[in-house]
Amino acid sequence: MNVSIVGAGPGAPDLITVRGMRRLQAAQVVLHDRLVAPELLAEATGARLVNVGKAPHRGRLPQEEVDRMLVHEASTGQRVVRLKGGDPFVFGLGASEARALAAAGIDFEIVPGLSASTALASLAGLALTDKGGPTAFCVLSGHLPPGAPGAADFDRLPVHSSLVVLMGRRYLAAIVARLRAAGWAADTPAALIASGSTPGQRVRVGVLGDIIDHAAGLAPPTTLVIGKGVTLRARLAPHLFEPPPPPEPSTAAPWCPPRSREGAA
Amino acid sequence: MNVSIVGAGPGAPDLITVRGMRRLQAAQVVLHDRLVAPELLAEATGARLVNVGKAPHRGRLPQEEVDRMLVHEASTGQRVVRLKGGDPFVFGLGASEARALAAAGIDFEIVPGLSASTALASLAGLALTDKGGPTAFCVLSGHLPPGAPGAADFDRLPVHSSLVVLMGRRYLAAIVARLRAAGWAADTPAALIASGSTPGQRVRVGVLGDIIDHAAGLAPPTTLVIGKGVTLRARLAPHLFEPPPPPEPSTAAPWCPPRSREGAA
Repeated sequence: MNVSIVGAGPGAPDLITVRGMRRLQAAQVVLHDRLVAPELLAEATGARLVNVGKAPHRGRLPQEEVDRMLVHEASTGQRVVRLKGGDPFVFGLGASEARALAAAGIDFEIVPGLSASTALASLAGLALTDKGGPTAFCVLSGHLPPGAPGAADFDRLPVHSSLVVLMGRRYLAAIVARLRAAGWAADTPAALIASGSTPGQRVRVGVLGDIIDHAAGLAPPTTLVIGKGVTLRARLAPHLFEPPPPPEPSTAAPWCPPRSREGAA
Repeated sequence: MNVSIVGAGPGAPDLITVRGMRRLQAAQVVLHDRLVAPELLAEATGARLVNVGKAPHRGRLPQEEVDRMLVHEASTGQRVVRLKGGDPFVFGLGASEARALAAAGIDFEIVPGLSASTALASLAGLALTDKGGPTAFCVLSGHLPPGAPGAADFDRLPVHSSLVVLMGRRYLAAIVARLRAAGWAADTPAALIASGSTPGQRVRVGVLGDIIDHAAGLAPPTTLVIGKGVTLRARLAPHLFEPPPPPEPSTAAPWCPPRSREGAA
């Protein structure tokens, strides 16, 4: 497959999938977001790297421009990887890029990535579901204040399920207030995960009623996890090994079996 | 880290993470579910393999027994991997195993895996979220009939969000009826993904009002996806490359499609 929309995962470079890594290693062109780990880009040894993300002193590229650049690169017949954080289709605008490729008549594949919506809680020992505990979870984006056009609907959610709010730092107070008004109890367990899966990971645990106090000093990206399964962390923490994992002895050497036929350089 | 609870991903062996693959390749003991891809187990070349999943002519091991076996192996000081389908903490009972390890004073790590709850929709070109479309999604287990003790609450969900129901084949009719009664319109787009990410993957698209008719002949495991983002697939399908990817040269063993968790003998 010549054109791949690949999810890079939640941050740590070794939390990409094996398939995603193989595509990167075989790529001739990589269009990447600004926040993708440099270690991942270093794996694309045969590729021209194109940063299509927001950059300092330059605004974020309009999505239409990213779509256009992707179609342009893909139409040359080179092996193109569009590398996006998390999963391409979960709050990632991958749908827009996939539509653009299809509209241009270009074949492509989607390589799913670990979404922060589930991976960061697991890594931190917070159970989104548990036997005898929550049997469902909901994932919302907190990038807009509750009630704003385009914002997620915080008013009608199953109150006994787990809740994950991505990008929830900026409007945390408004989100908590809205949930409380919708019937979520003040003593509902809640946690904030900042820079999840990276060496800068910080996890703070409290309850809905005081989680705002725990947010002091935490920088985005921040994931808010709410629900009974948050309490598991306290039992696991003394024995839970968290990121960063030790560096691999030989990051330069290929770590995986020989490449696939389509991917060989 | 000597003891790792590792998510194997949704089925395809190359959808494990790089970190998970490294743990497998270094393992001395692997305790695995029955449904994990044989190609993954083949990567654990230095390990004794222990099947702790349900087996023919033997019922599923009680979770307590799996916990006990894991603690026993881990306490020997060997490099132990507990390999579980999907993500260990998303409908996977990984929390029980993590609790058991912590209670026994054994240090461990959790390596998240791609959860079917997000990965299978992405792979099939169904957008759980989209610009101008759904800005939230909810994930429920359909392994019990709606209303049964322990079943997910289908009655209070944001009706404009996307909905993912895992293991939703057996009680599909009851789930659809409950959603319709809760206000989900008959023309809400809906899709079924059977054996997602494997060579046996089948995707059928319809609407909530007729999705039951589309289920004919589909075997578990089946994932139900509901919401506006389902319609994206029709636009992508002519150009979307779906599983299986070509086999890697190093993979000698033939692929065996994973059996159903709910329906297998």
